[in-house]
Amino acid sequence: MKTQIVLYDGFDELDAVAPYEVLLAASQRGAPFEVELAHLEGPREVTASHGLVVRATRALAEQLDLLIVPGGRWGDRSSPIGARVEAERGALPAAIGRLHAGGTTIASVCTGAMLLATAGLTRGRSATTHQVAREDLRASGALLVDARVVDDGDLITAGGVTSGLDLALWLVEREAGADIARQVGRQLEYERRGPIWRRPKG
Amino acid sequence: MKTQIVLYDGFDELDAVAPYEVLLAASQRGAPFEVELAHLEGPREVTASHGLVVRATRALAEQLDLLIVPGGRWGDRSSPIGARVEAERGALPAAIGRLHAGGTTIASVCTGAMLLATAGLTRGRSATTHQVAREDLRASGALLVDARVVDDGDLITAGGVTSGLDLALWLVEREAGADIARQVGRQLEYERRGPIWRRPKG
Repeated sequence: MKTQIVLYDGFDELDAVAPYEVLLAASQRGAPFEVELAHLEGPREVTASHGLVVRATRALAEQLDLLIVPGGRWGDRSSPIGARVEAERGALPAAIGRLHAGGTTIASVCTGAMLLATAGLTRGRSATTHQVAREDLRASGALLVDARVVDDGDLITAGGVTSGLDLALWLVEREAGADIARQVGRQLEYERRGPIWRRPKG
Repeated sequence: MKTQIVLYDGFDELDAVAPYEVLLAASQRGAPFEVELAHLEGPREVTASHGLVVRATRALAEQLDLLIVPGGRWGDRSSPIGARVEAERGALPAAIGRLHAGGTTIASVCTGAMLLATAGLTRGRSATTHQVAREDLRASGALLVDARVVDDGDLITAGGVTSGLDLALWLVEREAGADIARQVGRQLEYERRGPIWRRPKG
């Protein structure tokens, strides 16, 4: 599964790094994730919400199996960087919308959900986000679900920050089975917590 | 509290990034942490265990209140980078030993404890580490405690990877009070889990 985690200035460190480490650890155990850190405009250093400087090694691809979108600073309206600024700028939500239209599964952590909402992807869909953005997400037309991870098929959203661990372990379980997910959880000494909501089949 | 998190090639991403974000989030709420990412030899890009490239902005200081030491790749004896390589090289453990002798509180996440052990700091002290290194830590003369965080005063150790969240939230509670620790846990949507072991007073 060709997978990218998209970084932008102001992304929340753990929103991106937790899924990154989980998916890499899973791929080392045979899960089929090929994971890259991308920036919309190409390789560069990106400054995260709390000041961590991380290298994005790729441009956001035009074709992907899975895209993970972190949040960051949605609640800080005066911040010159972060998810709200990216929503207002519009280029990143537009790219997310194009990927989704092309068949990419889109997953978000924390207020990354608001970039999906800005792309128009959450209307009428089940979703969740960080507590600070729940009302904004509801206003986008999403059906808010009180769960740590909400799997609505090609749109998977998670709660705040550390819920990215549960999102990624769920993705591992979904794509590679519960056994590898258990192994990775044990390696990271993480006890998953739920609930995980899945759209009923049929 | 002048605090550094020391990075080296092969450090485990979450071992360092989780405490970084927790302490920064706490300092934004008034906790007295001044946090820097350091490398023994000065500012540089550092490649973590799963490939994340992060910028260390400082050289390891000669005087600190608190040093946090991540682990990484201790269990992989063939790895050309990581905590085991740093232990064999010796320069980083020596620097950790000098800081401790100068009054710095040393905290470790995961197999970072083995760098403290190599520095000779764990003999006769209560400590913990990632499951993969418990016997090595015991062989260093440490008194292994079955806890997620072990606070032995000027030596504080934690279990594997995600226990760095609990380590850092404990440091926040210890230095700035339980109320700020609760606020940060809530912001990160993290439910702390224990146990936390503290040396009995007296």
